[in-house]
Amino acid sequence: MPSKAVGWGVENASDTPHQLNFERRDLRDNDVAIKISHCGICHSDLHFAHDDWGMSHYPMIPGHEIVGTVTDVGPDVTRYSVGDRVAIGCLVDSCQKCEFCKGNQEQFCVEGSTFTYGVPDRYGELTQGGYSDHIVCREEFVCKVPDGMDMAHAAPLLCAGITTYSPLRRWGVKEGDRVAVAGLGGLGHMAVKLAVAMGAEVTVLTTSPEKAEAATAVGASDVLISTDEAAMEAAMGRFHFIIDTIPVAHEIDPYAALLRPNGSMVIVGALEPLPGFSGFNLIFGNRAIAGSAIGGLAETQEMLDFCAEHNILPEIEIITGEQIPEAWDTLAKGDMPHRYVIDVAGSEAVAQ
Amino acid sequence: MPSKAVGWGVENASDTPHQLNFERRDLRDNDVAIKISHCGICHSDLHFAHDDWGMSHYPMIPGHEIVGTVTDVGPDVTRYSVGDRVAIGCLVDSCQKCEFCKGNQEQFCVEGSTFTYGVPDRYGELTQGGYSDHIVCREEFVCKVPDGMDMAHAAPLLCAGITTYSPLRRWGVKEGDRVAVAGLGGLGHMAVKLAVAMGAEVTVLTTSPEKAEAATAVGASDVLISTDEAAMEAAMGRFHFIIDTIPVAHEIDPYAALLRPNGSMVIVGALEPLPGFSGFNLIFGNRAIAGSAIGGLAETQEMLDFCAEHNILPEIEIITGEQIPEAWDTLAKGDMPHRYVIDVAGSEAVAQ
Repeated sequence: MPSKAVGWGVENASDTPHQLNFERRDLRDNDVAIKISHCGICHSDLHFAHDDWGMSHYPMIPGHEIVGTVTDVGPDVTRYSVGDRVAIGCLVDSCQKCEFCKGNQEQFCVEGSTFTYGVPDRYGELTQGGYSDHIVCREEFVCKVPDGMDMAHAAPLLCAGITTYSPLRRWGVKEGDRVAVAGLGGLGHMAVKLAVAMGAEVTVLTTSPEKAEAATAVGASDVLISTDEAAMEAAMGRFHFIIDTIPVAHEIDPYAALLRPNGSMVIVGALEPLPGFSGFNLIFGNRAIAGSAIGGLAETQEMLDFCAEHNILPEIEIITGEQIPEAWDTLAKGDMPHRYVIDVAGSEAVAQ
Repeated sequence: MPSKAVGWGVENASDTPHQLNFERRDLRDNDVAIKISHCGICHSDLHFAHDDWGMSHYPMIPGHEIVGTVTDVGPDVTRYSVGDRVAIGCLVDSCQKCEFCKGNQEQFCVEGSTFTYGVPDRYGELTQGGYSDHIVCREEFVCKVPDGMDMAHAAPLLCAGITTYSPLRRWGVKEGDRVAVAGLGGLGHMAVKLAVAMGAEVTVLTTSPEKAEAATAVGASDVLISTDEAAMEAAMGRFHFIIDTIPVAHEIDPYAALLRPNGSMVIVGALEPLPGFSGFNLIFGNRAIAGSAIGGLAETQEMLDFCAEHNILPEIEIITGEQIPEAWDTLAKGDMPHRYVIDVAGSEAVAQ
């Protein structure tokens, strides 16, 4: 029997988030039911709510940085038990059979992976995210929160953490590399912490001189103001790797010019059409501009374990579900050097 | 004492190639003197002659696909002896001390590597290329032409060969990969042959349906006409790797959309500013757009040996030095599925 759920969401692309009652499906044999304690707010929640990418469905409960505790399991569940501290990220289903699923890149499932909220699932039902009191999900898409990791701080790792961890790993960032992180928001500040833990010397690239303090506070050894032409000129050819977390369209060439020969710049934030770039600069330097989307489930667990081992946690500001509209307004005005996390259990709508 | 040389070149950016007499430097202790038998014509010779990239010096003898026979060696030369069949590519000098030189990527020398023609060398003298009867070069920048390899056919390997071999190797093209080669000119037809020898299944992407026969003749198993929207749509997500040899600016997105998740497209021809592209497509697929420039000396020798082992040779049309203007006109009108090679020794100006 479907269960009653309460959360915060939008009913159309111009709606403001507000309390919504909805239903979660009955537990399937391989499902885990989770009482949500916290959910991070990702900038993409705003894009999805506003249907900026033309793929949204309503009503929509956003949220894909979800942590909580297992309250029930289906009879076929083998990995989790009631009481386990667990997490769900951006995906809740995939075919589990194709080469990408078998290769631990469920995000590229040939049948299409299922986003955690805002889309029809493989059975035709709309998925609903973590801005809510509980969730039901097949066990393959549930991760374990490492022992001792604070739940509120764990939440943003499920998107901001894996989105930055995966490209740093795939592109082989290592001890002694000079890494630049463009943008110091939810993704950017995690990229700094992760790259530092991998042994890199990290510079933050930002348009905002006032973010210098926040950059060094999270571990950056240097800050480069991208509007300072002389400083940018002096830094040409300096970095082995750039992770570009800027969430909007922006010029590519000024950043690519900072790469050493054989260097790569990976875009994780800007989903929009990007402007033209110099073929010359890519060619005479064996440089690459790449993209990267989240990570697979095994890599997400690896990232959680890496963060626990290296004591890496996001900077967060805890809010209640009732404060979501205000938090979204702040986020929409620009990125910020920390992540909002909803204390779901401590919100009025849930405590009622 | 400097030696008298004869060749074909231009005296300014709007000049037509014609016979020019000039001098080669006296042999230094680590120099090799080479009687040139053949020199390939690269499309970049036209760009350099016309100063399209704003770095040309005149008078200029083009040519960086050079093969010939050693006629003299300086007292410190250890690798070559008189009579050896040798080759010179795009570079003739570098610092030999920096991390890139030591890492066998002399093309990225931090002090700047010296191009084979059209630029001042490390001593302030203008370099002059292989459209000429002989050349003098330090031994570190001379390669060995493998025994049994035809000299005329070996020439284009020194630029067209290494420019396509290096990215195929660096990006790990292997048995069973589906590789697309965009453009079927001097570079493109070598890319097809090399990728086939590495075990890939190769498709040629071209705007010219009339090139289909030439594509299959050099080993392509399929041809995709890039102006055929339905065919391009059907091929979306198909290729592990694309090597893009198109020598002019062109849209990137229609090609990048053909990549599988984790696929990469490497641009080796288009040095011009390139148009905007989709961040979305790069991100949701972990795709990369990269550039690649020639290769180091060790890799160039490896490529020559690979071609000898796999019996890979370019398709060539042999001309005399006197026919260079006509060949350049043909090249300027569009790429072509073979390479012009100057039979230097058989040209009137040299035979005189």
